[in-house]
Amino acid sequence: MRADVVIVGGGPAGLLLSQLLHLKGVETIVLERKSRDYVLGRIRAGVLEQGMVDLLRKAQVSARMDREGLVHAGFDVAYGGKLHHIDLEGLTGGKSVMVYGQTEVTQDLYDARDAMGGKVVHEAENVALHELTGDKPYVTYEKDGETHRIDCDFVAGCDGFHGVSRKSIPVDVLKEYELVYPFGWMGLLADVPPISDELIYANHERGFALCSMRSMTRSRYYVQCTLAEHVEEWPDDRFWEELAKRLPEQVLPNLTTGPSIEKSIAPLRSFIAEPMRYGRLFLAGDAAHIVPPTGAKGLNLAASDIYYLSHALIDFYKKNDEAGLEAYSERALSRVWKAERFSWTMTKLLHTFPEDGEFGAKMQRAELDYLFSSRAAMTSLAESYVGLPY
Amino acid sequence: MRADVVIVGGGPAGLLLSQLLHLKGVETIVLERKSRDYVLGRIRAGVLEQGMVDLLRKAQVSARMDREGLVHAGFDVAYGGKLHHIDLEGLTGGKSVMVYGQTEVTQDLYDARDAMGGKVVHEAENVALHELTGDKPYVTYEKDGETHRIDCDFVAGCDGFHGVSRKSIPVDVLKEYELVYPFGWMGLLADVPPISDELIYANHERGFALCSMRSMTRSRYYVQCTLAEHVEEWPDDRFWEELAKRLPEQVLPNLTTGPSIEKSIAPLRSFIAEPMRYGRLFLAGDAAHIVPPTGAKGLNLAASDIYYLSHALIDFYKKNDEAGLEAYSERALSRVWKAERFSWTMTKLLHTFPEDGEFGAKMQRAELDYLFSSRAAMTSLAESYVGLPY
Repeated sequence: MRADVVIVGGGPAGLLLSQLLHLKGVETIVLERKSRDYVLGRIRAGVLEQGMVDLLRKAQVSARMDREGLVHAGFDVAYGGKLHHIDLEGLTGGKSVMVYGQTEVTQDLYDARDAMGGKVVHEAENVALHELTGDKPYVTYEKDGETHRIDCDFVAGCDGFHGVSRKSIPVDVLKEYELVYPFGWMGLLADVPPISDELIYANHERGFALCSMRSMTRSRYYVQCTLAEHVEEWPDDRFWEELAKRLPEQVLPNLTTGPSIEKSIAPLRSFIAEPMRYGRLFLAGDAAHIVPPTGAKGLNLAASDIYYLSHALIDFYKKNDEAGLEAYSERALSRVWKAERFSWTMTKLLHTFPEDGEFGAKMQRAELDYLFSSRAAMTSLAESYVGLPY
Repeated sequence: MRADVVIVGGGPAGLLLSQLLHLKGVETIVLERKSRDYVLGRIRAGVLEQGMVDLLRKAQVSARMDREGLVHAGFDVAYGGKLHHIDLEGLTGGKSVMVYGQTEVTQDLYDARDAMGGKVVHEAENVALHELTGDKPYVTYEKDGETHRIDCDFVAGCDGFHGVSRKSIPVDVLKEYELVYPFGWMGLLADVPPISDELIYANHERGFALCSMRSMTRSRYYVQCTLAEHVEEWPDDRFWEELAKRLPEQVLPNLTTGPSIEKSIAPLRSFIAEPMRYGRLFLAGDAAHIVPPTGAKGLNLAASDIYYLSHALIDFYKKNDEAGLEAYSERALSRVWKAERFSWTMTKLLHTFPEDGEFGAKMQRAELDYLFSSRAAMTSLAESYVGLPY
């Protein structure tokens, strides 16, 4: 088999790249280790930056998002028993975010790939990348007991943190930076109306909480938990009770509880691998970087990587111009580091860090008090939240 | 003896309070443990916020400052081998800071107190505060082997971190918050022209450096050092060499070296005591809070405390209105915490923290890159640097 670009990973990053390249006549094959149902069953983020929304429109996969997605012009931060509003639209000159689940984005991308006859191989096992530093790389994988080979010009590594792509780069080439936070997020998904029209990020001495949503009938809630906890210890009732304790009283009358559809604990990690290119291999999304979920930058960073990478590949194939490929790693990383900074800052601003002691807790409170006293500080937060320019 | 207010501590905070009260007919006696020469020999900060400049004018001690002080409309941050400018005036709608040494402020205050016959007792030993929770407090001290007693209405504790005032508040009343940083500042004062018209704060992998000044002929330089170091190990030549290594090459031709007048190592500490009032005792300045010197907030915070306290006392004596005294602690602390936050942020932004590892170093660099890419972030920094409103 042959393709211009082999895309390793059939999540939103890989599918979006495949779609954007296909629209410009660049041929791709997507290899995904899991089944399609598995990929579509994963519960992930749900807040899209304007830049990602624009990119989905350009990829011609935005019809349902534009119909069903919720435009959020602001969000609330709860602390000290009160709500404090961040007016994204007012602070950024009209920018906003779109609430639309990653699961829905992935579904829309699969539908588009199907409609265009895009090649996506599921349950491709033992994917291996070969000859990445030459000009004739190839990729092998196993499926149904047989080994397959795809020759290509480039490989796009969109296979996430645990994927094979980053691991194919020699350790003396790759530099990794990591911070693991001493807590996790326990998430609960339920088919109940959200507590508010906008998201509420809550800073509380019992720990962080987040009231998010996927739609006006499906809510997503999180509470900060220790890494020693297990979902089994958290029946729905206990989750709802703990959530309520961390929210201001004024919003509690609007809290609709109900049976969970999904409940899980995710650790929080900051991770960056540099560079994002090795020969003919280009990393994108979680394969190269992880952000803690506070501020919802993970999916959006994958989208900005794909923006840079798709432009670079299209320039190569259509204009024989390699400048974009040469600049890809630096360009993507410049935005990645800023988003890592923002996610780290938001995480530190809103979570409980017992090891920082009383001084740390008071500094966090002083940060919040200053933030909501300063239009400049709120503007800085808002411009990062809606997404820095590509 | 009797006075309306006994002021413990003859540094700038105590003298300024004495001067402001005297101008409104409120009688004070200032008690200072050290000699006048000792107080005037201390080398301290030198960057005054607009609010402090205005207060010194109101106190009628600004003539020399207005003649000799240097108005700074911006400053530079050096990192990555380049200078990056913070345009204070442009970002804050015309605000600036005044470079004028604390030593000079103190001298001007002593001159004014002398001219008005203000009572300042130097070398007052074993100062003790009595009956603070009643309405007839008094203060005792020893001088030349005799014990003296001053009856008063109020005591102002302006005697610094190590003074007796804060220690006179019972431990179960006072709550203290503290962070000690794992490094210090080695400072060198020399009669040489400064390297630049404005201050340069340098972030460098060898450690922080600061190029400051007292006048266009007197420079003050600092380099971050470990707490294990001693001034004796740092002859002037070594200091100048280390400083040069931490500055961008482009500024080195303007670095004029010369023999030091003074050289010392200061530890960096964040400290806040709450509340700032206990009965008839009111704490102000370093007696209640310490900031790390990054951003030069220490003297300015003392001034804002004195602003609130002088107004409160004048309202009490002139209008029989106790509201200002009742509100003093909360009002002062609200501004203190914001300045503590700023000083902590500036310290973390600019110093080397080996214990934060490579991830921490990269996050710091990302903070700097973001800062200088965002007008909102620079505005936030600038508004705190020139001083939040009283």
